Amino acid sequence: MLTLYHSPHSRSTRIIGLLHAMGILDRVKVRIVSVARNDGTGGPDPLNPHPEGKVPVLVHDGVEIWESSAIMLYLTDLFPASEFGVPQGDCQRGRFLSWLSWYGGVMEPVIVFNHMGLEDPILHATFRGMPEIIARLHKALEQGPWLMGDRLTAADLLIASPFLWFKDATPDDPLIRDWVDRVANLPWQGAVMDYETWHMAPA
Amino acid sequence: MLTLYHSPHSRSTRIIGLLHAMGILDRVKVRIVSVARNDGTGGPDPLNPHPEGKVPVLVHDGVEIWESSAIMLYLTDLFPASEFGVPQGDCQRGRFLSWLSWYGGVMEPVIVFNHMGLEDPILHATFRGMPEIIARLHKALEQGPWLMGDRLTAADLLIASPFLWFKDATPDDPLIRDWVDRVANLPWQGAVMDYETWHMAPA
Repeated sequence: MLTLYHSPHSRSTRIIGLLHAMGILDRVKVRIVSVARNDGTGGPDPLNPHPEGKVPVLVHDGVEIWESSAIMLYLTDLFPASEFGVPQGDCQRGRFLSWLSWYGGVMEPVIVFNHMGLEDPILHATFRGMPEIIARLHKALEQGPWLMGDRLTAADLLIASPFLWFKDATPDDPLIRDWVDRVANLPWQGAVMDYETWHMAPA
Repeated sequence: MLTLYHSPHSRSTRIIGLLHAMGILDRVKVRIVSVARNDGTGGPDPLNPHPEGKVPVLVHDGVEIWESSAIMLYLTDLFPASEFGVPQGDCQRGRFLSWLSWYGGVMEPVIVFNHMGLEDPILHATFRGMPEIIARLHKALEQGPWLMGDRLTAADLLIASPFLWFKDATPDDPLIRDWVDRVANLPWQGAVMDYETWHMAPA
């Protein structure tokens, strides 16, 4: 059995988005939990198995899977027919794994530092900055329309996700803006927002 | 063909370590490149395909794979007989993917902030801090001797790697210290250090 621990309008929303995209929402039991919100509301939920009260967590037959990129890779490998992943043996598999790893290891930290106005030579040496993020996305999208070329994958849903939440943070680069718009306008995005609003409503 | 772009005594050293551990160093062409060092020496190498001059980069039949966790997953999937990964279909696969993702997305940023003495509520809300890192490692190692229980995997080599470079940064927790010592004393570690010293020597 697959159970997703989810909090609406949070980092786990992109997993709900992927489940909609893959057409497998009915294969996963979704448990809504609270998380600490930036405005001071919410807090860790005793129902959430994540030791730090974060979401998402996916539990498959008792095994906990955490970190968005790991969950996305796991789900796309488990349901290859959806074609939102790149299967083992496909020559582009390594590039797909790299995009997923790069999101958590480079892009998300750099976006957080940028949002905080935090600049430091050690951070730059380790992670680089927004110009490097933009250059990498721009170069990939020159071969677009998606990060993996002709294939729309979970990597697009993950990597575009910060710009779906914070539209104003989208880099001022036409290729990137058009790609974020393409992701925002995918046919299931309305259903994702309805799902989130429904589950956010007080009982 | 597999080509690894590597700089001795850098983040790519852990890939050299994995190649030694897996016994597949002869299956990969290693190209030594320079990188910018913390002491101001070195710099990006025109031979290195990484757009930001980082290592490691693995190129497999023309496809570039970057980020240590992605490269480790790719290699362990490509050479399953080495048993340093957890193959697709194994019930513990998701946990293995999570450790690899967690390293880049949480542990490495937190170690960098800790090293810098950087404390901030936004960083804490996003990444958490050293106490949470220690708690998670400690809990896993209670079931040890390795992060995946009885199985020594690439996750141990990746996640112990910062404490192999900066021994003094090892948390003062007996389970974690013993595990770092076990990783440091694996039978091939001497060969890895010899390899690094040899390739660091002036031509």
